[in-house]
Amino acid sequence: MLKTLEQISTESKFVNPFWEYKVDKYKMPTGRISEYHYVNSRGAAIIIPITDNNKFLMINQFRYLNRRTSLEFPGGGIKDKMSPLENAKKELLEETGYTASSIRLIGEYNPYNGVTNEMCHVFVAEGLKIAKTIETDDSTMLGMTTHDESEEFEILELKIQEINNKIIKADIWDGMTLAAWAIYSITN
Amino acid sequence: MLKTLEQISTESKFVNPFWEYKVDKYKMPTGRISEYHYVNSRGAAIIIPITDNNKFLMINQFRYLNRRTSLEFPGGGIKDKMSPLENAKKELLEETGYTASSIRLIGEYNPYNGVTNEMCHVFVAEGLKIAKTIETDDSTMLGMTTHDESEEFEILELKIQEINNKIIKADIWDGMTLAAWAIYSITN
Repeated sequence: MLKTLEQISTESKFVNPFWEYKVDKYKMPTGRISEYHYVNSRGAAIIIPITDNNKFLMINQFRYLNRRTSLEFPGGGIKDKMSPLENAKKELLEETGYTASSIRLIGEYNPYNGVTNEMCHVFVAEGLKIAKTIETDDSTMLGMTTHDESEEFEILELKIQEINNKIIKADIWDGMTLAAWAIYSITN
Repeated sequence: MLKTLEQISTESKFVNPFWEYKVDKYKMPTGRISEYHYVNSRGAAIIIPITDNNKFLMINQFRYLNRRTSLEFPGGGIKDKMSPLENAKKELLEETGYTASSIRLIGEYNPYNGVTNEMCHVFVAEGLKIAKTIETDDSTMLGMTTHDESEEFEILELKIQEINNKIIKADIWDGMTLAAWAIYSITN
């Protein structure tokens, strides 16, 4: 039986516009007190949008921290008092321009459980309908959206085998997308 | 073509024993300057250890931030000046008590790319040989190891279908393990 680590206190060390840096004191099995430094989160949602032709919508986005573009399923952190489902619908619309007639939860995970308490809820969205006009000059792309001045998204439509090939070639390197894809592939 | 975000400056805001909180200023496509707050990392390694009987070693560990046990592949952040491969060997030995005659890189991902620059290297370890004596009183378990007073690991040996069943039942909720499993399942 694994021993648990007991919380003694919690403190907000720094709040930035995107996340909160917290420090907890906790008691080790030996009785000694130690500190846990972490990224406090209200949770997240990631959405696997499937078209009526059995293709998957993915977004291509420049990721500043690794200075490269990343092909991902849409998603994001939960803001305000939204439920994971409300957040999933909002992120799907903002990032792809689509709404869905059906959204179902297929699993959840913590993306980085040594450093954050974030649980990310994985949804499958079907019955997609375009809600925002988007433009494209590239036939491989469905269009492009922006939802604030720092974010810009290319929207792509891919088959299962195309996604798997992009994983084999390491063109998909977003762990949250890979984790969602593992859950989707195994539960479907 | 996606616009890139250009770094203007970088600053270490806070260093704790586990990670560093950094703030960069960057230029948006519109020219406006904004801040990026992130967890700076030297990278990580995760190891998928496969026995001669085609079973997978996994570790069960209490995860403080979500107050529950988590079944995961061994791994951890890169310390000092280790290479990802050296770090993989070290984590495998410390967390499972095994060494491997063959370790190969099968992919890499960023577990949480909105918040950290960490790239996690995924290795498959084969030709496993026990290097540390471990004890167990549970026949489903290979043993138990500890490598500092806050960490304690139960070691389990699972078949592919058993891992997939644990993903279906949401008993596996560690995103880094799920991402590594997606890469392993698709590339093998």
